[in-house]
Amino acid sequence: MDRWELEHYLREHIPISKAMGVEVVEAESNGVTLRAPLAPNINHRETVFGGSASAVAILAAWSLLYVRLQLEHVNCRIVIQRNTMNYARPIVDAFVASSTIQDSLTWEKFVKTLKRKNRARISVPAILSCNGEHVGEFEGDFVALRSQKSDF
Amino acid sequence: MDRWELEHYLREHIPISKAMGVEVVEAESNGVTLRAPLAPNINHRETVFGGSASAVAILAAWSLLYVRLQLEHVNCRIVIQRNTMNYARPIVDAFVASSTIQDSLTWEKFVKTLKRKNRARISVPAILSCNGEHVGEFEGDFVALRSQKSDF
Repeated sequence: MDRWELEHYLREHIPISKAMGVEVVEAESNGVTLRAPLAPNINHRETVFGGSASAVAILAAWSLLYVRLQLEHVNCRIVIQRNTMNYARPIVDAFVASSTIQDSLTWEKFVKTLKRKNRARISVPAILSCNGEHVGEFEGDFVALRSQKSDF
Repeated sequence: MDRWELEHYLREHIPISKAMGVEVVEAESNGVTLRAPLAPNINHRETVFGGSASAVAILAAWSLLYVRLQLEHVNCRIVIQRNTMNYARPIVDAFVASSTIQDSLTWEKFVKTLKRKNRARISVPAILSCNGEHVGEFEGDFVALRSQKSDF
């Protein structure tokens, strides 16, 4: 999956991502980075609405799991269970949300559990930045549920 | 402020609330309830995208502070600092986010601190439901910053 495929997938299946103007900057197993402009996500203070910042972070973390699980050839659905979001400072311009999973052991354990038990949980972080400045952090707890039909 | 005024304010100043189809069901000091339809907030599983659920909860909690601080005649801006969101179950239809502040002592202390120090923090919860069923909980930490110009 390249970044165009992911962008098409998000815009097609999650229409609010299109309304937020989300673009995929990078979609690799090392990390997914999404970008969103200020205008459609603006608030009454002319900064980015917290709900948009949080939604783009969720999409980045979800997309990273989606990209990585495709590479593992595991057919499953990925559901968010809980998240925290810290708004470090006002976002005054277009912003990016970057999600990476640093710990390869955590990932291996997650995939092993998913293959054995058809269900596994993982926490995925995302960092928000604007004009190179750190503006917030996100962490989401996701559960992956392996589909009954055969893996793709 | 009645519910039409709040709805107009949100749609005018936070355009993504219009894209999400947010309607104000109730806007009282006792509580603010917002409603959003499934269609513009749908995801690839044909349930509500977590980012939309979270964004509507943020709007409900922010709106409750906005409505209550107007009644206190305090001119200030309300900034979200942190939030947690728990997605209890998939949201399969239109949903509502209801925010209330039960503890009047917490509120009184918040307003007193805001008037004295021009800055105060408060946690505001919101409950999400769909077809009468509980589907998630939100809690947001907000800071209110009193404006230099005179209160309205």
